Amino acid sequence: MGKDQCYGHPTIRTPHLDKMAAEGMRFTQFYSAAEVCTPSRAALLTGRYPIRSGMCHDQFRVLRQHGAGGLPQDEVTLAEALKAKGYATACVGKWHLGRPAEHLPARHGFDEYFGMPFSNDMQPKPGTAKGRERFFEEDNEYWQTPLIRGVEVVDATPDQATLTGQYTSEAVKFIKTKKGGPFFLYMAHSFPHVPLFASKQFRGKSKAGLYGDVIEELDWSVGQVLAALREAGVEKNTLVVFSSDNGPWLIFDQHRGSAGLLREGKGSTWEGGMRVPCIAWWPGKIPAGVVQREVATTMDLFSTCVKLAGVEVPKDRPIDGIDIAALLTGSGSVQREAFIYYRGATLYAARLGPWKLHYTTRSAYGPDKPQPHDPPLLFNLEDDPGEKFNVAAKHPQVIKEIEAAVAKHRAGVTPAKSQLVELVKP
Amino acid sequence: MGKDQCYGHPTIRTPHLDKMAAEGMRFTQFYSAAEVCTPSRAALLTGRYPIRSGMCHDQFRVLRQHGAGGLPQDEVTLAEALKAKGYATACVGKWHLGRPAEHLPARHGFDEYFGMPFSNDMQPKPGTAKGRERFFEEDNEYWQTPLIRGVEVVDATPDQATLTGQYTSEAVKFIKTKKGGPFFLYMAHSFPHVPLFASKQFRGKSKAGLYGDVIEELDWSVGQVLAALREAGVEKNTLVVFSSDNGPWLIFDQHRGSAGLLREGKGSTWEGGMRVPCIAWWPGKIPAGVVQREVATTMDLFSTCVKLAGVEVPKDRPIDGIDIAALLTGSGSVQREAFIYYRGATLYAARLGPWKLHYTTRSAYGPDKPQPHDPPLLFNLEDDPGEKFNVAAKHPQVIKEIEAAVAKHRAGVTPAKSQLVELVKP
Repeated sequence: MGKDQCYGHPTIRTPHLDKMAAEGMRFTQFYSAAEVCTPSRAALLTGRYPIRSGMCHDQFRVLRQHGAGGLPQDEVTLAEALKAKGYATACVGKWHLGRPAEHLPARHGFDEYFGMPFSNDMQPKPGTAKGRERFFEEDNEYWQTPLIRGVEVVDATPDQATLTGQYTSEAVKFIKTKKGGPFFLYMAHSFPHVPLFASKQFRGKSKAGLYGDVIEELDWSVGQVLAALREAGVEKNTLVVFSSDNGPWLIFDQHRGSAGLLREGKGSTWEGGMRVPCIAWWPGKIPAGVVQREVATTMDLFSTCVKLAGVEVPKDRPIDGIDIAALLTGSGSVQREAFIYYRGATLYAARLGPWKLHYTTRSAYGPDKPQPHDPPLLFNLEDDPGEKFNVAAKHPQVIKEIEAAVAKHRAGVTPAKSQLVELVKP
Repeated sequence: MGKDQCYGHPTIRTPHLDKMAAEGMRFTQFYSAAEVCTPSRAALLTGRYPIRSGMCHDQFRVLRQHGAGGLPQDEVTLAEALKAKGYATACVGKWHLGRPAEHLPARHGFDEYFGMPFSNDMQPKPGTAKGRERFFEEDNEYWQTPLIRGVEVVDATPDQATLTGQYTSEAVKFIKTKKGGPFFLYMAHSFPHVPLFASKQFRGKSKAGLYGDVIEELDWSVGQVLAALREAGVEKNTLVVFSSDNGPWLIFDQHRGSAGLLREGKGSTWEGGMRVPCIAWWPGKIPAGVVQREVATTMDLFSTCVKLAGVEVPKDRPIDGIDIAALLTGSGSVQREAFIYYRGATLYAARLGPWKLHYTTRSAYGPDKPQPHDPPLLFNLEDDPGEKFNVAAKHPQVIKEIEAAVAKHRAGVTPAKSQLVELVKP
């Protein structure tokens, strides 16, 4: 027995996330701004679609381990914005916005950094070439993704089973030492990205295999962080947000999650690729146990946090996120333009109100190539969250409205040079 | 904004069910004993697989409007069992266990009956033959499913938009007048079976079309019933269970629900056909806000309620349900044999612990014919609730154990003559 299981999995236990949701707000229509990690994280930290920062590419979907590129210096990250008000800042966990020292968190407003510079399946052991099975093995010999502190590699071949624990200790330590002043902690767990690893304490303990073990350990980590905030006595002036950078990576068999009734997963602009969990927690400010059905996005977190901290949102560039404080506190509604679904640097779809128009779709399973739709496909996501029933023929006026919103979006976007193509020989 | 949405739909609002779950116990692995309504309801009321009562058939899946058959008189229903202890009993809503007077609820232990004798899409207007579109029209002229009180038709062509409201009034009235003694109310809503109808108060009010409207009205009805129990002051000695007779009827486009991450829906022995929502509520007895991950079935409700009322479970016949009071109160665990998935009168699959073995499957979509599996398919439902990964090759010992459990089940079953074949000319 347990409480809640707030996003509905029948057997994986997430008591700390459930408690967080019971004490806070759970979103049901929350979006990451991209279908894979690098662009999604760039959008989260800048409040801007990745097309504006060059942190996306149609072919090279994410930064590779030998990539020379990274988040451009002229982007303003949430950490940089908050530093204007004296916030102490830390990044713990997966970065994936640039491996070279000049692209690491220290150059983007973070006082402290501890974690992996990219995904935990990157940098395999040189000279060995394993097939697909490598993703299903808990093989620390094979994966050589380094752990970095500041800009230095402190462990070239970490035991990945310790990652969740190490990130958690680091986060808790940061919270404990920062209780004198305002702080911003960006904690990005490496898992449940494959290959999966869980600590001894959690390995084999869930009903849902290694994937379940990993999720239950992440849940434990959330509990530790919230407990640290309470112990530091800062829970009533700290906004905590739990979310993800994309949907489940469905090609990895049992080492994947599930998007429930949503269609497809990671890598796709179907809802399963970009609609993600989101729980917002702020005792006394965010009402307890509320389900929020309004649309919101990771980019909104930038605009919202900057405003809450009393900082001006950068005025010299387009910011795509909007301030959703009114949604969080339940004090009102927000005005929102169309939400745009990019795959890489290409606009695939757009959502306006309940309606989503797909110009192009691409399956992570079937023939993995773009499938253009002319006329485009139209779904009412609030009626049909699984995107099963194309109702384009019935709603020509809706399509016109979305087309207009998309034209407006396109007119306001100047694609930046992609950072994802420049490779440095290892 | 709203609270909870306890089974995870992103936009349909179910505040009363969510509150019921927050105050009670929500199951995540609860089963109906059949994939369509007649056999499922027979099992619920008798605690026995429908193969034992003859209330199933491979071809005639449910009782038709002109069927002469019905639940055999020698079956002991929950209502009959409880009458032994002086319970007042009522059935409100859809019956579907026999249309002739000798098969109506009055002959099966119910003091009162008000509702439709079968599904609300039966008995179409004679002489008209509409196609598939008839299911998508709110056409009271076409559907002529009668409303019965006791054994008399009181409305031959009821306005189906009033059904949920009428059933609710009837249930509330019964509760109000029975507060002096013990009572058993079996309330079986006609919706969300197609054709869908919602009252004026709810029509067009949800974000999820008519299906959403219907669910939100059913949720309102649950709220009315629980409020009536509180008003009568009997909530602390009343067990209330909310569940369904099968999964969503996925062939009905937007007039269907969703089984979330479960595979398939109504009519199928994949999980989506038979794993159903279940919320149990009993303030002071059932702990609040608990998620119950143990397996339980509608048949268990028979055995549990009979025992709770101090009645002996019938000893002259096999009863398949088990007493799950220990699960409900959180006081212990229960011993369970294999759960058997029948489609009609044929054994398709069996679950033992987390394992499910499919001998035969059949899709409600594709080519709708039985697909035998030799060797059978094996899934770990707790790891893989979506039944995607056949792991039969890896677990021969598990298969042996399930085979033994199935053999034991088969040895204990004598299939009864089916009640579903005997038709009377209209």
